[in-house]
Amino acid sequence: MEYSQLKNIIKDENRVILGEHIEKEYLTDGLALEYGEADALVFVKNTNEVVNIIRFANENLMPVTPRGAGTCLTGASIPTKRGIILDLSKMNNILELDEENLNITIEPGVLLKDLQDYVESKKLFYPPDPGEKASTIGGNISTNAGGMRAVKYGVTRDYVRELEIVSGDGTIITVGSKTIKNSSGLDLKDLIVGSEGTLGIITKITLKVIPKPAASVSVLIPFDNLKTGVNCISKIIKSNSNPTAIEFMENNIVENSEKFVDLKLPCNNGNAYLLLTFDGEEDEISANINKTREVVINNGALDFRELNEEEALNAWTIRGALASSICQNNEQVPIDIVVPIDKIPQFVEFTNECGKKHGIQVIYFGHAGDGNIHVSAIRNSMESNEWKQRTHKLLNELYKKSNEFNGLPSGEHGIGLTKKEYFEKVTKDENLEYMRNIKNIFDKNNILNIGKVYC
Amino acid sequence: MEYSQLKNIIKDENRVILGEHIEKEYLTDGLALEYGEADALVFVKNTNEVVNIIRFANENLMPVTPRGAGTCLTGASIPTKRGIILDLSKMNNILELDEENLNITIEPGVLLKDLQDYVESKKLFYPPDPGEKASTIGGNISTNAGGMRAVKYGVTRDYVRELEIVSGDGTIITVGSKTIKNSSGLDLKDLIVGSEGTLGIITKITLKVIPKPAASVSVLIPFDNLKTGVNCISKIIKSNSNPTAIEFMENNIVENSEKFVDLKLPCNNGNAYLLLTFDGEEDEISANINKTREVVINNGALDFRELNEEEALNAWTIRGALASSICQNNEQVPIDIVVPIDKIPQFVEFTNECGKKHGIQVIYFGHAGDGNIHVSAIRNSMESNEWKQRTHKLLNELYKKSNEFNGLPSGEHGIGLTKKEYFEKVTKDENLEYMRNIKNIFDKNNILNIGKVYC
Ligand SMILES: Cc1cc2nc3c(=O)[nH]c(=O)nc-3n(C[C@H](O)[C@H](O)[C@H](O)COP(=O)(O)OP(=O)(O)OC[C@H]3O[C@@H](n4cnc5c(N)ncnc54)[C@H](O)[C@@H]3O)c2cc1C
Ligand SMILES: Cc1cc2nc3c(=O)[nH]c(=O)nc-3n(C[C@H](O)[C@H](O)[C@H](O)COP(=O)(O)OP(=O)(O)OC[C@H]3O[C@@H](n4cnc5c(N)ncnc54)[C@H](O)[C@@H]3O)c2cc1C
Repeated sequence: MEYSQLKNIIKDENRVILGEHIEKEYLTDGLALEYGEADALVFVKNTNEVVNIIRFANENLMPVTPRGAGTCLTGASIPTKRGIILDLSKMNNILELDEENLNITIEPGVLLKDLQDYVESKKLFYPPDPGEKASTIGGNISTNAGGMRAVKYGVTRDYVRELEIVSGDGTIITVGSKTIKNSSGLDLKDLIVGSEGTLGIITKITLKVIPKPAASVSVLIPFDNLKTGVNCISKIIKSNSNPTAIEFMENNIVENSEKFVDLKLPCNNGNAYLLLTFDGEEDEISANINKTREVVINNGALDFRELNEEEALNAWTIRGALASSICQNNEQVPIDIVVPIDKIPQFVEFTNECGKKHGIQVIYFGHAGDGNIHVSAIRNSMESNEWKQRTHKLLNELYKKSNEFNGLPSGEHGIGLTKKEYFEKVTKDENLEYMRNIKNIFDKNNILNIGKVYC
Repeated sequence: MEYSQLKNIIKDENRVILGEHIEKEYLTDGLALEYGEADALVFVKNTNEVVNIIRFANENLMPVTPRGAGTCLTGASIPTKRGIILDLSKMNNILELDEENLNITIEPGVLLKDLQDYVESKKLFYPPDPGEKASTIGGNISTNAGGMRAVKYGVTRDYVRELEIVSGDGTIITVGSKTIKNSSGLDLKDLIVGSEGTLGIITKITLKVIPKPAASVSVLIPFDNLKTGVNCISKIIKSNSNPTAIEFMENNIVENSEKFVDLKLPCNNGNAYLLLTFDGEEDEISANINKTREVVINNGALDFRELNEEEALNAWTIRGALASSICQNNEQVPIDIVVPIDKIPQFVEFTNECGKKHGIQVIYFGHAGDGNIHVSAIRNSMESNEWKQRTHKLLNELYKKSNEFNGLPSGEHGIGLTKKEYFEKVTKDENLEYMRNIKNIFDKNNILNIGKVYC
């Protein structure tokens, strides 16, 4: 059977692109470093089309790579076995806001920024906040995306109530429910969340939203060294001051980012910083900030700066640009290992030593409040083979060490293609076996995003 | 093979009880209405023993019914195919409190009350709070137990970080992780939570704990009728006043309970009541109570009573005894249907009519803040066959209606034995099929808690 037959299913020639006509950007991910090949790119517009494509792909054993906005950082959206790229980005309607039950139902291609804007215009709030606002909610769910506000509000998984999916064999099933609680049979919904397109195509989504917090205030806390800063984190959390975000960063990369975005942090006397946000009612925020101030001043902070709106915006812009500032015109391997919070200093130290040992520049920063450390290995001018070999050794050591610390290969980006090898090394065979058996239930012919994560 | 061979595996005669020597209480659940039969009751003390029993049961195709404290309300812990009752209640050690990462690791037989006392003595807090404090955490996880504080804090699922399980074929696997975030492969952990002993035996548990809230205050709000009260709920939630608990109850059953526990509500001018709790810092509580007062006074509340400690204790005791007060010496069928919050008034009205139509007394009360309505059908002096037939009709209608309202058969108690028929009726065949296929992966020989939930 020919891929051109897809034009009989989707009778809109702009939505079925074949072979060499596929634009390069659809063959890669958010890093645009690796490119795959594919036989067809199909833009679907509704669940029925998805069913028909998946049935056709099953009949002809054609690989299918689901795709949202293609912003992932793991190669999960790169087609590696040719076949069909199933692009969900045009299924982007907001279907229903249920203000009484605080649920919103949308199609998977709705962009994060559009969802956030929409609910905020209704005085509501969708807390998950990964950095890339032009990612789709279907992609966010498939990677269980995290982001800045996870300390207080949790991650994407915590906001998914109900999903319609088209499983790998073309069956439409609805998993989860529109209710708040659910103890009714096996939890199929959470199998889909974070499954990176390996079990089914998400075609409809009901999310939980919450009332919009009245206000939000950020604080910047400089320290002599990272360790002193990180040691404060669990003390801050235990003080019940309920921060929305706790990020850490060191001065060397801050300076780089400051230049890059041409902004300055409102204080520059630290070698390391914690950047926090608090939200809620103004009184509540003040009380929480006071508690936090007391904790950190008693535990080695050099200063404690409550930021005004402009300062906060600058600080978060600098934080947001950390990776890009170092990686402009430079190749990087992003790593989002997650460890128990108290292991952050040791893990960062290990990362440092490891980088030196292998002669690779490493930078690290990230979500200190949940142990999700973003490490980037930076290529600079290293020769290609050398770079591959050295990063391979470095990554092996980092994933092994994080595993010794009861950590995991990914806190929010997922495993995709690039971490598969390391993920499979640190994950027990039994667990991989269960995952593969589950895939076999949802996708008997093994056509969905094969060669990714665990399959 | 003989069940007496179990004594070769567990070499402690007090821990292997055979056939007729099994005490009746181990053959039933929290309602003590139905009794099963079993060939052996085994009290295990560690994971290895569990593995050995499960292997033995597999070799001999013996049914296994896992059991915590046997307090469930659905027959899930009743052995219906004879075989082995695997009692986890003696695996009740608290293994490790990790105060830095706010995790606690325990064995499955630890009682809820013991866990709560232990963490509170360390100024920490385990939020899930189902009514029966003598239930085990293994049981709570297996039913995804809810309870009073779910409105603010969520349910048991939200506090489970990592589980060690012995799957139906005797493999030990660890699912989930000790980290806060996780986007590393398929989520096997959430499959186990709420699986009612059908996939594996939970043998070790790491839970998330949080800092203990500084204070807690309850308020009682009387209304002319239930509908007016229930209509306030989403307004309260949307006012961002963050209540911990929102319960509803009507005067007729309140009076009964007041007599039963010989206490009085601090105000009695309502036909229906909302009972709320707020926790946190004192300022925060006051602010939230003020917001709530404004909302409800503007929306039909007759009064708004902030309760002192003694009044709060009394009110919650009366709330806690609602069901028991009506069911003393009386048979009941407890139902914990969950519907979207805005459907509560309609569902309650329907329940009322339905009860009248079938000549059955029904009472209802419950977790208004999350749409989890507790209905009890009360037998009174109805003849046994009549009672069975009529409740069967009533239940069919209630589950059907809740399904029309996008509701589910169970919000927190699970499906077990008694709701299986209704659950299977309102659940799509595809979903049941996926559940059964997943069971087949974990429990190839189909020995674990068969005849329950979906299997
Ligand atoms: C600058 C930048 C900052 C970022 N910051 C963060 C951050 O803070 N936190 C974070 O978690 N991530 C972050 N990311 C990563 C990325 O944005 C997320 O992984 C996002 O969830 C991907 O969404 P997407 O729509 O681009 O999905 P894609 O990249 O298109 O796909 C991701 C995976 O989901 C699958 N998929 C997509 N849609 C569907 C669907 N409808 N049904 C089934 N499977 C589907 C794909 O097959 C693939 O496996 C960042 C990326 C960039 C470039
Ligand atoms: C007075 C009263 C009030 C209650 N209030 C509430 C409430 O507010 N909210 C609520 O949710 N529930 C409530 N319940 C129901 C009950 O307490 C819960 O369902 C509880 O979670 C059951 O725990 P258990 O240890 O008694 O489990 P059991 O009844 O022994 O077993 C329940 C299920 O879990 C399985 N199981 C138990 N332990 C394990 C294990 N280690 N591994 C694998 N499977 C296992 C069993 O096979 C069974 O399917 C109440 C019950 C009573 C009697």
